[in-house]
Amino acid sequence: MTGSPDPKLLRAALSQFVTGVTIIATKENDGTPRGFTANSFTSVSLDPPLVLVCLARSAASCDVFRAAGHFSVNVLSEEQKGISGLFASQRSDKFDIAPWHSGNTGTPVIDDALAWFECAHHQLVDAGDHVILIGRVTDFGQGRGRPLGYFRGAYFTLGLEDPLVDAVARNTNTIIGAVYEQSGRVLLEVNPDTGDVTVPTVGDMMTSANLSALKHKYDGTQLSTAIEFVYAIFEDKRTGRVTIYYRGQASGPAPAGTRYFAFDDIPFDRIKDSAMFDMLERYVSEARQGGFAIYMGDEIEGVVRPVG
Amino acid sequence: MTGSPDPKLLRAALSQFVTGVTIIATKENDGTPRGFTANSFTSVSLDPPLVLVCLARSAASCDVFRAAGHFSVNVLSEEQKGISGLFASQRSDKFDIAPWHSGNTGTPVIDDALAWFECAHHQLVDAGDHVILIGRVTDFGQGRGRPLGYFRGAYFTLGLEDPLVDAVARNTNTIIGAVYEQSGRVLLEVNPDTGDVTVPTVGDMMTSANLSALKHKYDGTQLSTAIEFVYAIFEDKRTGRVTIYYRGQASGPAPAGTRYFAFDDIPFDRIKDSAMFDMLERYVSEARQGGFAIYMGDEIEGVVRPVG
Repeated sequence: MTGSPDPKLLRAALSQFVTGVTIIATKENDGTPRGFTANSFTSVSLDPPLVLVCLARSAASCDVFRAAGHFSVNVLSEEQKGISGLFASQRSDKFDIAPWHSGNTGTPVIDDALAWFECAHHQLVDAGDHVILIGRVTDFGQGRGRPLGYFRGAYFTLGLEDPLVDAVARNTNTIIGAVYEQSGRVLLEVNPDTGDVTVPTVGDMMTSANLSALKHKYDGTQLSTAIEFVYAIFEDKRTGRVTIYYRGQASGPAPAGTRYFAFDDIPFDRIKDSAMFDMLERYVSEARQGGFAIYMGDEIEGVVRPVG
Repeated sequence: MTGSPDPKLLRAALSQFVTGVTIIATKENDGTPRGFTANSFTSVSLDPPLVLVCLARSAASCDVFRAAGHFSVNVLSEEQKGISGLFASQRSDKFDIAPWHSGNTGTPVIDDALAWFECAHHQLVDAGDHVILIGRVTDFGQGRGRPLGYFRGAYFTLGLEDPLVDAVARNTNTIIGAVYEQSGRVLLEVNPDTGDVTVPTVGDMMTSANLSALKHKYDGTQLSTAIEFVYAIFEDKRTGRVTIYYRGQASGPAPAGTRYFAFDDIPFDRIKDSAMFDMLERYVSEARQGGFAIYMGDEIEGVVRPVG
């Protein structure tokens, strides 16, 4: 590689490393709580107990954290996705909305985190466009639950396994679909007669769905698809039918009957299935937020200078 | 918190943060490749491109990495669990077994990693019992596949969703069980007549299993259980029956008919079901390896001084 790497490609490669999601919090001299969402947290040392987190120099709160004597790291559970989104935003009322309390050092600590660490400022290391903030853990604790995970610019949770396991135990009709993404665009099927659009699926009331059918749906075309993980599960209480949506990646040109749509151009009014509508709306919202603002504490950068 | 934190409790709290698994590799002056498994990797900066990884000072290869001009970070896929275990060990033939090649800088790069980064030594930061090694990315690339994840001292993968989804689409008998752990001990049911032991399960050929039944199996006793994520799935091709094992945590005394067994004391000869035998043997092996050697690049510490 000569010269600087393409930041978009580098970011995509870096996003192959799975992480959890944390809220990093502190307070200003006047007591105002500040915080942002970050995935660039890691354990450093057990004796003495040290952890680190990376802050974007361009982030609004970077100077506050550089100067703070204490800060907290709050590891989010899968039930705190909303809090992750809130702290990845630039809203000024984050701490009015999210439940929190003051820790022993007076630092804000998020309620019900999977784990929390109160830290004393230990060392700052300047490193390119970020600052490495090393803290000495002065107090910590943990809760119960399952983690909120982050992979390839999107959240994942392990909690979706439960409805799957329960669905296995029942006899149900199943539909399996996938949201295939390619560089911020989504592959949708377009009905040539009505103009209605749908996420690609296999299975219906009559035909049993299976993953193999989904994976081979576009065989014989130039489209290549890869499914990543289960993104959403819906159960129709009336019919007992279960619909499972995967998240996936697509490469190659859109085959006949399908089209790539940029997030902004998805014709939501052309999606007739309300569960599919809700799922895709959430997907787009999370992809924007997840891809642009959580990564490495880029609280601001993502908003004003979206990559991808 | 006064004084030093209990390292076991601190480690448990830190392990609530989900990570991927990487192999960090370099070569000695004489060309000998060296490498170890670590989860303490994080992105630091995009411009210039910087990443960091933490090395235990006590690790055998720490001095080699401190002195190395280049190193590689290899993010493992779920298919590379074996490579993770290999590099978490002290075996001297790691690079004879794992497929690898020399990168542009001559640094060993693991074949088929989900992502790989060749790095030039940028900065070393001493931090307690570890060293933070910051590298400037000089070359990188990515593969396809799903990540190997690490959470609460154990691997997890997203790939188990696929057989679950396929099982939903079929009409099957299901058994659901859980390996409940408590501080390195496993809860097993003991048949009072035969002495045979089994992992707690619900469902059989006649009775439909569901998660609720598993969760409430020990209601009315002092045992409290929490399931975490699906650990293994077996399908009996002959009967079509699917067995799903969760990983979970238990607290409280073992109720009548059950007992906690230390990993070393599990009476494997008393497990009659071969799939259950295989699953539990793998669980114990991974729990030992995962909990003790991967964490923060503790290549050596875990082996000579197991925590937990």
